[in-house]
Amino acid sequence: MSDPYKIALCQMKPAKEKQKNFELAAKAVEEAVRCEADVVCLPEIWNAPYDLKLLSEYAEREDGPSNTLLSELARKNGIYLIGGSTPEKADEHKIYNSSFVFGPNGDIIARHRKVHLFDVDIERGLRFMESDFFAAGEGLTVFDTKFGKMGLAICFDVRFPGMFRDMNRQGAHIVFLPAAFNITTGSAHWDILLKSRALDNQMYVAACGPARDVTASFVTWSHSCVATPWGEYCASADARETIIYADIDVDYMNKIRMELPIGN
Amino acid sequence: MSDPYKIALCQMKPAKEKQKNFELAAKAVEEAVRCEADVVCLPEIWNAPYDLKLLSEYAEREDGPSNTLLSELARKNGIYLIGGSTPEKADEHKIYNSSFVFGPNGDIIARHRKVHLFDVDIERGLRFMESDFFAAGEGLTVFDTKFGKMGLAICFDVRFPGMFRDMNRQGAHIVFLPAAFNITTGSAHWDILLKSRALDNQMYVAACGPARDVTASFVTWSHSCVATPWGEYCASADARETIIYADIDVDYMNKIRMELPIGN
Repeated sequence: MSDPYKIALCQMKPAKEKQKNFELAAKAVEEAVRCEADVVCLPEIWNAPYDLKLLSEYAEREDGPSNTLLSELARKNGIYLIGGSTPEKADEHKIYNSSFVFGPNGDIIARHRKVHLFDVDIERGLRFMESDFFAAGEGLTVFDTKFGKMGLAICFDVRFPGMFRDMNRQGAHIVFLPAAFNITTGSAHWDILLKSRALDNQMYVAACGPARDVTASFVTWSHSCVATPWGEYCASADARETIIYADIDVDYMNKIRMELPIGN
Repeated sequence: MSDPYKIALCQMKPAKEKQKNFELAAKAVEEAVRCEADVVCLPEIWNAPYDLKLLSEYAEREDGPSNTLLSELARKNGIYLIGGSTPEKADEHKIYNSSFVFGPNGDIIARHRKVHLFDVDIERGLRFMESDFFAAGEGLTVFDTKFGKMGLAICFDVRFPGMFRDMNRQGAHIVFLPAAFNITTGSAHWDILLKSRALDNQMYVAACGPARDVTASFVTWSHSCVATPWGEYCASADARETIIYADIDVDYMNKIRMELPIGN
């Protein structure tokens, strides 16, 4: 038996100015902490507008100012902070779409580089070629916390059920998914993908998107949500700036796995 | 380029008398043929009420009267007939929950024995132990037709995404799923499971349930449906006796796979 813990998903609306995004992220994290969140998550590409033409200006090395800020926020508040994602400058001029996780002492305890890049070309819908800009990461990301093992994936990774199955098999009871879906595929697929990853693996899935900016070049679906091991939402947002909270209950997960055994 | 073909899912309501079920099945198949269906599907356990205490009375060998009827219906009408499922008497006193598929010449062209039996015990919900009665089948079922390769699974098999991935990899563009979900898990999971299997594999999934009988010991969710490779329904029913039709369009499937490539 273990007590539930509280997570917060900060559906912030990234601005053009990086400094402004630092202020927005800090404000959101501090609000979440006042509301007693133990684990706080930011959205995909929280320190920049999601525009592939501009992202190189915002890219930083692992020890750059974005991660310095997140490390300080985690340490000061004694929380786990899932740092959404940022464009990460790596060796050989590669840029990854990377999520860093900070422990309560401010250390980086995990890094996930988005494995599956979003390359789509939908008639009368959207064209977006993320691989023109980003390099693809490799492998799964599962990390230890005092609440148990957690998994981490980014946005388009959600379309690959094998990743979620494998994170589950490695012991993750929750997967965090910083994610900026667009409106075409978001309206069609967001709910099915989030709920089915949770239901099939009988685990929690927490997806954190940026708030919708209708003036942006890439307009996001937003709708941050937490899907339970029973395949329903226990928290969900519309497209506006907000923070949503959910209690993560491992005992409830284990009860479902016992009642409806499917090998998890 | 290939022309769409038409499938029909017969959401019939099985009666207590086997002979009556023969008449209901024949009537439904003939109506579907008049409405120009090329492939017709019956529900899980179409020749009996779904009551584990009674099923042994209805069990037959592969060459029994139920399959004789279906073979004749397929041959007479020149259609593919997915024979829902029936309790099949096999060697060593085993009984399987089996689906037989008949080609336009009346031959059996595939047999699927339900692999994953429905053993659940949900607090304030349902208790059902299918493995008390049935033996479990093994392996995938993919078969050739003039419309291309098709997959076949039964009910609880739908909770195992690996089976659907493997049928897809073996070339199935559609999976038929005779299925009798109950109301507890049907209301919670039916839509998510059907749509996500279709969406993740970018293929069609056609689920055919019996109509709801509120006087039965096992009350079914029903809601037969056809999910498209885009993860939405192109046909769906409520809980009442009906036949639903859908045009299966392999070109549309291929277009989705090209526009949104995820490895299918």
